[in-house]
Amino acid sequence: MSKKFVYLFSEGNGSMRELLGGKGANLAEMTNLGMPVPPGFIITTEACTQYYKDNEEINAEIQAEIMQYIDKLEEMAGQKFGDKENPLLVSVRSGARASMPGMMDTILNLGLNDEGVVAMAESSQNHRWAWDCYRRFIQMYSDVVMGVGKSYFEKLIDDMKEKRGVKDDVELTAADLQELAEQFKAEYKKEIGVDFPQDPKVQLMGAIKAVFRSWNNDRAIYYRRMNDIPGDWGTAVSVVKMAFGNLNNDSATGVAFTRNPSTGEKQLFGEFLLNAQGEDVVAGIRTPQPIEELKKIMPDVYEKFVDISERLENHYHDMQDMEFTIENKKLYMLQTRNGKRTAAAALKIACDLVKEEMIDEKQAVAMIDPRSLDTVLHPQFDPDVLKKAEVIGTGLAASPGAACGKVVFTAEDAKNAGAEGEKVILVRLETSPEDIEGMDAAQGILTVRGGMTSHAAVVARGMGKCCVAGCGAIKMDEENKQFELGGKVYKEGDWISLDGATGFIYGEKLPTVDAVIGGEFAKIMEWADQYRVLGVRANADSPKDAIQAKKYGAEGIGLCRTEHMFFGEDRIPAFREMICADTVEQRIAALNKLEPMQQEDFEGMFEAMEGMPVTIRFLDPPLHEFVPTEEEDIELLAKAQGKTVADIKAIISSLHEFNPMMGHRGCRLTVTYPEIAKMQTSAIIKAALTVKAKHPDWDIEPEIMIPLTGEIKELAFVKKFVTETADELIAASDVKITYKVGTMIEIPRAAITADEIATEAEFFSFGTNDLTQMTFGFSRDDAGKFLDAYYANQIYEQDPFARIDRKGVGKLVDIACNLGRQTRPDIKLGICGEHGGDPSSVEFCHEVGLTYVSCSPFRVPIARLAAAQAALKDADREDDEF
Amino acid sequence: MSKKFVYLFSEGNGSMRELLGGKGANLAEMTNLGMPVPPGFIITTEACTQYYKDNEEINAEIQAEIMQYIDKLEEMAGQKFGDKENPLLVSVRSGARASMPGMMDTILNLGLNDEGVVAMAESSQNHRWAWDCYRRFIQMYSDVVMGVGKSYFEKLIDDMKEKRGVKDDVELTAADLQELAEQFKAEYKKEIGVDFPQDPKVQLMGAIKAVFRSWNNDRAIYYRRMNDIPGDWGTAVSVVKMAFGNLNNDSATGVAFTRNPSTGEKQLFGEFLLNAQGEDVVAGIRTPQPIEELKKIMPDVYEKFVDISERLENHYHDMQDMEFTIENKKLYMLQTRNGKRTAAAALKIACDLVKEEMIDEKQAVAMIDPRSLDTVLHPQFDPDVLKKAEVIGTGLAASPGAACGKVVFTAEDAKNAGAEGEKVILVRLETSPEDIEGMDAAQGILTVRGGMTSHAAVVARGMGKCCVAGCGAIKMDEENKQFELGGKVYKEGDWISLDGATGFIYGEKLPTVDAVIGGEFAKIMEWADQYRVLGVRANADSPKDAIQAKKYGAEGIGLCRTEHMFFGEDRIPAFREMICADTVEQRIAALNKLEPMQQEDFEGMFEAMEGMPVTIRFLDPPLHEFVPTEEEDIELLAKAQGKTVADIKAIISSLHEFNPMMGHRGCRLTVTYPEIAKMQTSAIIKAALTVKAKHPDWDIEPEIMIPLTGEIKELAFVKKFVTETADELIAASDVKITYKVGTMIEIPRAAITADEIATEAEFFSFGTNDLTQMTFGFSRDDAGKFLDAYYANQIYEQDPFARIDRKGVGKLVDIACNLGRQTRPDIKLGICGEHGGDPSSVEFCHEVGLTYVSCSPFRVPIARLAAAQAALKDADREDDEF
Repeated sequence: MSKKFVYLFSEGNGSMRELLGGKGANLAEMTNLGMPVPPGFIITTEACTQYYKDNEEINAEIQAEIMQYIDKLEEMAGQKFGDKENPLLVSVRSGARASMPGMMDTILNLGLNDEGVVAMAESSQNHRWAWDCYRRFIQMYSDVVMGVGKSYFEKLIDDMKEKRGVKDDVELTAADLQELAEQFKAEYKKEIGVDFPQDPKVQLMGAIKAVFRSWNNDRAIYYRRMNDIPGDWGTAVSVVKMAFGNLNNDSATGVAFTRNPSTGEKQLFGEFLLNAQGEDVVAGIRTPQPIEELKKIMPDVYEKFVDISERLENHYHDMQDMEFTIENKKLYMLQTRNGKRTAAAALKIACDLVKEEMIDEKQAVAMIDPRSLDTVLHPQFDPDVLKKAEVIGTGLAASPGAACGKVVFTAEDAKNAGAEGEKVILVRLETSPEDIEGMDAAQGILTVRGGMTSHAAVVARGMGKCCVAGCGAIKMDEENKQFELGGKVYKEGDWISLDGATGFIYGEKLPTVDAVIGGEFAKIMEWADQYRVLGVRANADSPKDAIQAKKYGAEGIGLCRTEHMFFGEDRIPAFREMICADTVEQRIAALNKLEPMQQEDFEGMFEAMEGMPVTIRFLDPPLHEFVPTEEEDIELLAKAQGKTVADIKAIISSLHEFNPMMGHRGCRLTVTYPEIAKMQTSAIIKAALTVKAKHPDWDIEPEIMIPLTGEIKELAFVKKFVTETADELIAASDVKITYKVGTMIEIPRAAITADEIATEAEFFSFGTNDLTQMTFGFSRDDAGKFLDAYYANQIYEQDPFARIDRKGVGKLVDIACNLGRQTRPDIKLGICGEHGGDPSSVEFCHEVGLTYVSCSPFRVPIARLAAAQAALKDADREDDEF
Repeated sequence: MSKKFVYLFSEGNGSMRELLGGKGANLAEMTNLGMPVPPGFIITTEACTQYYKDNEEINAEIQAEIMQYIDKLEEMAGQKFGDKENPLLVSVRSGARASMPGMMDTILNLGLNDEGVVAMAESSQNHRWAWDCYRRFIQMYSDVVMGVGKSYFEKLIDDMKEKRGVKDDVELTAADLQELAEQFKAEYKKEIGVDFPQDPKVQLMGAIKAVFRSWNNDRAIYYRRMNDIPGDWGTAVSVVKMAFGNLNNDSATGVAFTRNPSTGEKQLFGEFLLNAQGEDVVAGIRTPQPIEELKKIMPDVYEKFVDISERLENHYHDMQDMEFTIENKKLYMLQTRNGKRTAAAALKIACDLVKEEMIDEKQAVAMIDPRSLDTVLHPQFDPDVLKKAEVIGTGLAASPGAACGKVVFTAEDAKNAGAEGEKVILVRLETSPEDIEGMDAAQGILTVRGGMTSHAAVVARGMGKCCVAGCGAIKMDEENKQFELGGKVYKEGDWISLDGATGFIYGEKLPTVDAVIGGEFAKIMEWADQYRVLGVRANADSPKDAIQAKKYGAEGIGLCRTEHMFFGEDRIPAFREMICADTVEQRIAALNKLEPMQQEDFEGMFEAMEGMPVTIRFLDPPLHEFVPTEEEDIELLAKAQGKTVADIKAIISSLHEFNPMMGHRGCRLTVTYPEIAKMQTSAIIKAALTVKAKHPDWDIEPEIMIPLTGEIKELAFVKKFVTETADELIAASDVKITYKVGTMIEIPRAAITADEIATEAEFFSFGTNDLTQMTFGFSRDDAGKFLDAYYANQIYEQDPFARIDRKGVGKLVDIACNLGRQTRPDIKLGICGEHGGDPSSVEFCHEVGLTYVSCSPFRVPIARLAAAQAALKDADREDDEF
């Protein structure tokens, strides 16, 4: 039997989302529930993928099947498609598996033609309605199917209104609308070269193809990328007998939510327009009335609608977003779906539904989009103020939150201003590790260059600080401490505001609203923690970050990057002395200066975490990141080191690397300079002993992590220095502690030889940032030059640095987990790349059985929720199997 | 039963090399053959690895076992170890599985002490001998076991000779030697703090440990790396009753080869020293006599030795390298092994042995070291001249061969001089793609910076041209066209000579001897081709290289790099115009200029290969490699493009990459600029059609290779442009050809998703250079900074860019082969990284079942031979299984 590509509403049901799309499945479900849905049918998502396989053509079989269903629809409607007396009109609408509001296309009143409109006008004796339907259809068909006329048609309407001296579309007469329809057709012919199609079948196939095609329009591709929707799902198409909200003043069209989508309040929330069709509400040409007004105008209809909306919410156990049309006082339901909502509303609705016993706690946990939590965890601008504020420029939305402050141009200035309690925005061409303190002191960071994974973006996300990156339109004048943007000059001290969630820059002081982590947030998190299996740790490099992480529910530190500790003003000189050392003795002398400071850092971390696990990674970046670049600083260094400027420049030049990503870094530094690892081990162990002595009841078991391992002998070589140093210190101490030595898995070779690596490593932490770079063979810093072309051509649907690439990187992670467990069944497995805070990647981590994920402190709640959802999904699957 | 760690000679045999080492196994074999070998035993290689497991200690069990065998040896020798009257003396010598001449340590006369030497002097009435033995023993023991005294002892001997007014050691009297022994012991005590050990057991264990330890001395590690010997094999130790070549003038010691190791001529070849011990021959203190002299002095012994040497050659079916000692006219065989020989000798010996019916053709093929062919394929310096020439500096032996010419400093000068028939050496800080023509015109290339895989090294090896790279000692003064090395200044026009096999630089004109590819070479190659399964192709970018490759037996071109074609003076302007294009139209216009030139290139390649397969790779390097770097050139480009210098600089700066290795290159260029792929396809197909029209009987099937694929959709996207362009051209032509589209597998993600990739790719070519970089996560250009530390610490034993890393990179290759064949069972699989010319890697390629290897033309014979050896090994293994 050949595949069935078309379903009547009565043949489907709500569980058939994959095949029928969300809209189609829900129309079927409402039909089955006996609700007033106009008759119609659905062309499946499989027909859409078939259309793409057939080189963007609808094949003859599917066309035939569609026409069979048109026959059935005619029978149900008692009207004929293309009938000259009483033609059947339909809407043709998209409907993907996941709701993608406004991303794809819709055509109403399809089936009308020059004869039909006259007949309809006559038979209904409503000429205005008939011509309104026709002009709308020509308008939509031209735009959606043929891609012509949109703005010109709008202009023609405006001209007509001006000519007639009216303000509102409704005031145009039948004759006006007829004239418009003729003008539209003329324009159509001029643009396309042939007459507007009169055959309803041609119209129908054209419209269906247009909907299929709209699956791959730019905004749909972008929306899918933002929302993790696979590109091969395709969209279904619903073909529904029209209900006419524009028939007369006893007709209307509207949308409504069963609860308030902004606040979550339980209260019908919606609006409608009398004598209008769907797109009028969206287009905002007329101002709709609040749904409560309907009660006054058509109380029976209102009551019926309230009843249906309550039934739908009870049926779907979630807040519903509904579309309806009233034709001559008769209500028709055109759509229902789980409504989009703000994060705050989502939390409230979930908790309320549990209270109302409509769902259980698991379902509440499952219904929150973890990514949406970003907005409740960061300060925001007042939405009302924002509407009126002028956007002076746009950059990348690199790190969420709202920030407002006076412009400063150097990290130093930011630090000083911060110390005086001033609010500042640090504006830089790009940031470097030396800017960290200034970034920390600023309210937000704005950079001219760099992408989503530039230094500024990565560090800001780690700090939970607002950042707008890569605003190339800025003309920077660092010398005079000013920049130009949107034709205006901003000087040091001028107020600007940044929205890190949109990338918008405002040239004024805008009030921010602090993040309010309400009771519902806490409740959902508590429930999530009950169900999740995966541990959640944080990446934190300072006691301050560690405390923040704990506040957000981190159960340990999965990654403490020691290199960030060396950039402090008090440390960098000793570190540079170490780099400039001519002999091992000199290097050790410099390291000895650093050791007490490192020890203090680690004591702070252990104190902050109060006995929770802390994973400390050895120095990772290449040494050239630590040397000065400015002539002046080079001179100072030369003086401090008793060397000539030429000597220092020779050292700097000797550190130059062609591909720093793949250079002399990570454990390779330890292989060449074992004394660095010895110093860091010593500082870690001494700190652990000190804190353990103060708090004997805390579990202090440092996890020492060796980065960039590629070969077991390399790890064994480095580990020897660690264990020798550590064991000696512990043996000499009265306090007893244990420690673990493990490694990052971030080199493909480490992943595929993980069975060997596990003989030495007591834990693995997947460094999926680097692993992604190496597995794909492209550098984050350079990929910006071509990734857009990859998205545009649908080669990649997702940024592999944001969401783990399961097929490639994920396969290596999975291989490494299995090999690691072969050797050491109880091996601790974690992840500490940026993926640790991405819900889809967290789900992957759950599936491959990691012990924990580690992410930046502000992403900890997101990871907790995503981990719980992954566990619940898993349980669901297991239930299904029994 | 516990493991047996010690074997008497009579308990072993020649097949036990792995356990007993080569020397031990052969001593056992000779013993079994009834040859005069002194009694002795062998401590196994497993004891050595056990020693390393036990933290460099010999455990009690093994010590006990050794002492049991000392008992047995005492019984056989009729002497007691440590006896005060007639002590048993032994030699303690290393012996690994593979012969490593001179790399490890030996101790003679062990067992002597203060009492023993007196007793031995008395009983033998040969005081001189007894004291000579003792002073030698103290000398060797101090040096080898304790690491002290070597040069000081030699000075003491020299002082003594001066005092006595003699020239030769033999002229020193018993009293002199006794005095020396006392001086040595005093020095020993001064250095070590305790008396020289008198207990033979202590001496013995010390010596055995020293031999085990010497397995990991620097020169042994280096030798193993050069010769592909694994570091975990360990060495065996032989303990043999001494035979004394220094007993009197009826005693002697010597070495001999059954054939001439330089020429291969069949003639006993060796030398001996009367009244001497082994190390005297090696040390060169006295000049030994040719072996023929022995016939006159001790005709019976000579005859016996000739007889034994013939028996040994017949027994081992190979030229033997033997050590012997004559004690009081009695001959003792101390060692035999297959002798080291020059490549020319190896070829002659192998062919002679076949002629003599001692071996068959397969064995002849198997006995030639493929790597040694390098020296017969390149010009060499006359070895006699070389001995007298002064080395003024040393660089890396980057590409073999000998070169001699006048110094020039620019590629331009090299080209001009070359055009006038002048021989020149191109001396550069480092070379760049722009220098190619100059490199081609020069006899040899010398660079100041860069490693074994620098541009100069890679290109020179491809050209088969001598190159010495990275001679950091050169002080370059490009402005004045001169450089300083070894305290002398060399100006333009001065003669220098380079030896690319050693890295030596000579400050004079040295005569070279051309490569003579004799009849034996051709014969061995012919035999090799009969047995090999693996195809052998060449990497060649020009018809000239292609013809060279065919001459060396290449069966096709496995890699034609199109980018090298763009650097010509006539092409680079159009290429830069393409880079500077503001619009697609401008880019296409520039590409249109390049197309006929590319077509001509490809026609040349197809013509040269006469119907053999040619694989052409699309443009691979990032575009910034093609832009000018000099101010002057930038100005010229600006003028040519009608742009400002600032515009051009902005373009150049926009092309900058942080990690060019992982940047915008390979097929990523096609994704952003499909028109480049279209132009290249068009040029390839037009060339193929043109050549096919001229030669209808040739198989012209271009293999179009897409580089740097990481994802199936990426390959499909690029392939579409190729097939559309190609199919259109073929359809429009009267001539019919087919073509293949395949991809490089050089990104880890491509390897692990090769099943998907194979749905589009008709062939894979493993780009193991890049695959090695990505799999290890280090860049070739930067790894030099730390790889030495990795070798020194035995983390890596081999340069993974020279020899394929089977455990990591090899695993990925194997995975990709299997996945590829799953999808497309007949998929063509090749390799085109530098590994394609490395024998060990060729063996790997055979094992994983590749279709062919592709390497630089000069390595083709090496690959052919290595492929044959791999196939023979395989057949052997299969034979073993039946």
